[in-house]
Amino acid sequence: MTTRSLSIDAATALATGALMRCNTGRAQAESTARALIEAELIGQDGHGLGRVPTYAPQALSGKVDGRAVPRLARVRPGAIAVDARHGFAYPAIDLALEHLPPLVRAQGLGLAGIRASHHAGAVGVFVEKLARDGLVALMTVNTPAAIAPWGGGAALYGTNPIAFAAPVPGAEPLVIDLSLSKVARGRIATADRKGEAIPEGWALDAEGRPTTDPAAALAGTMLPAGDAKGAMLALMVEILAAALPGANFAFEAESFFEAEGPAPGTGQVILAIDPGALRANGLDRIAVMAAAVEGRAGARLPGRRRQRLRAERLRDGLEVDAALCGRIEALGR
Amino acid sequence: MTTRSLSIDAATALATGALMRCNTGRAQAESTARALIEAELIGQDGHGLGRVPTYAPQALSGKVDGRAVPRLARVRPGAIAVDARHGFAYPAIDLALEHLPPLVRAQGLGLAGIRASHHAGAVGVFVEKLARDGLVALMTVNTPAAIAPWGGGAALYGTNPIAFAAPVPGAEPLVIDLSLSKVARGRIATADRKGEAIPEGWALDAEGRPTTDPAAALAGTMLPAGDAKGAMLALMVEILAAALPGANFAFEAESFFEAEGPAPGTGQVILAIDPGALRANGLDRIAVMAAAVEGRAGARLPGRRRQRLRAERLRDGLEVDAALCGRIEALGR
Repeated sequence: MTTRSLSIDAATALATGALMRCNTGRAQAESTARALIEAELIGQDGHGLGRVPTYAPQALSGKVDGRAVPRLARVRPGAIAVDARHGFAYPAIDLALEHLPPLVRAQGLGLAGIRASHHAGAVGVFVEKLARDGLVALMTVNTPAAIAPWGGGAALYGTNPIAFAAPVPGAEPLVIDLSLSKVARGRIATADRKGEAIPEGWALDAEGRPTTDPAAALAGTMLPAGDAKGAMLALMVEILAAALPGANFAFEAESFFEAEGPAPGTGQVILAIDPGALRANGLDRIAVMAAAVEGRAGARLPGRRRQRLRAERLRDGLEVDAALCGRIEALGR
Repeated sequence: MTTRSLSIDAATALATGALMRCNTGRAQAESTARALIEAELIGQDGHGLGRVPTYAPQALSGKVDGRAVPRLARVRPGAIAVDARHGFAYPAIDLALEHLPPLVRAQGLGLAGIRASHHAGAVGVFVEKLARDGLVALMTVNTPAAIAPWGGGAALYGTNPIAFAAPVPGAEPLVIDLSLSKVARGRIATADRKGEAIPEGWALDAEGRPTTDPAAALAGTMLPAGDAKGAMLALMVEILAAALPGANFAFEAESFFEAEGPAPGTGQVILAIDPGALRANGLDRIAVMAAAVEGRAGARLPGRRRQRLRAERLRDGLEVDAALCGRIEALGR
């Protein structure tokens, strides 16, 4: 793969420009580009620049309203409702992240729910930001259907990532970011492209039988992490991230990739807690746990790998597939 | 096994009486007995009457203060802190469950954290109660160390159950209750008693190697559900259920079983959300998802099995191991 070296500013401008040429407002394009570049910085390329060539056609077709301005309402003392209005998810998430911290400091905790939304990318980025603002944060989002109820045939739940972050005094935040499928769907798509078999245990075919054929897996369902437990957590996420904000469930949501069809209208929910809300020493106790984990030979505090990568890439810039850069530059011309 | 048929009242009185003879106040014994019987009703015998012969000696030794009266403080508009004062967990949980619903109706959501606590038993019972009060609820608790950080040798996290419930209009609540170990520790203890091997993948020995020897597994660590993902969720639970309320972490907590040693001092956290807080139709949307799951051949809505068992046992009473009844009757005499 031939790569091109891009500064962070240049990479951000590349994505912003392409989206703006494709029916997307400046503020919306900038918010989206920032989120994609943050994903690149932490090594989550699947949520990075590679999304621009699938996002832009959705803005062109009107499946995503690239000019939607999200609306926020403080619906209850502890709760914020955001309507993403079928735009990109990131402007709505940014709005929630801006309004949550003062609410949480006043109330002890706060909840933001986003409806009529779209692909939320590398979800850990947003909880890490809240942790840098001094808050403990849990965010979960639903995605188009990929996981079946345990024993239940066709897909009903998304892969539904759960992200959690907590500030660690004197250090970078602890950041957990996991999806509820056993492996990322992207790994199956890659095997399919390369014509390779996948290990048994990753996916089921459309009839609910174990399969090692990536094409059959893509037409079937992803196995949940932790088997029945992962399927139950995926259902929990559908309630929290879709039922409560009034978003579409996984089984009602169209693809995040295809340019045609109705808007996915998925949901996101963010819970943030003041670490001193229940007990003044909450932060100090988090530091005790972080030190205990880092003191175990062989163990690593979740988040440390991404933070190291991010620091390196902020310094050195990004190496981006040159063919991808070319595709992005050609968008909307 | 010879069993004895007991009415629910008789079974509750059996446990209450034994605890009261063993240094436990009436209100504390009644609260504890109710929780143990609720666990029996839903088929979670491991958190049922069998706990009385391990609880009572802890009250006798003073490891648990059987007369502790939990203290509750509304520390923030959205947050309640409960000090269980090293008594049994259930009186503290009851207090939180009594104060959360009005707070949640006013604020949109509420958080209760419990510190200086003990074994919380069948955690799903408590979120199901909140769901019957019309709230969506998430509860998680930490337990003495059983799970290692992924790749990290010795145990640092508990098996840390996560329970979630949501009201379903016109039906019983949806109830999820899962622990973050791949299998319950009790199944390994049972294999050890019977001299049977356990399947590989359940546990590691004290050196972190896979083992099929239940004794080596009990001296080692439990493998987390979903591998690295389960270990990360167990860490998340330590932050939420122990760091925030100011409770002991798993690796600081003594056994829930042994009569001697310092109090475990573990923690519990309950988050409850008004299903209409973000969007008036939240409840209706939960009904849509519940119907979708129940409409899938082979799938079952989490909670339905326990609710069927509970209805049967409320009608027919409990069949309890006669030897266990005898042991409970002999306590404190």
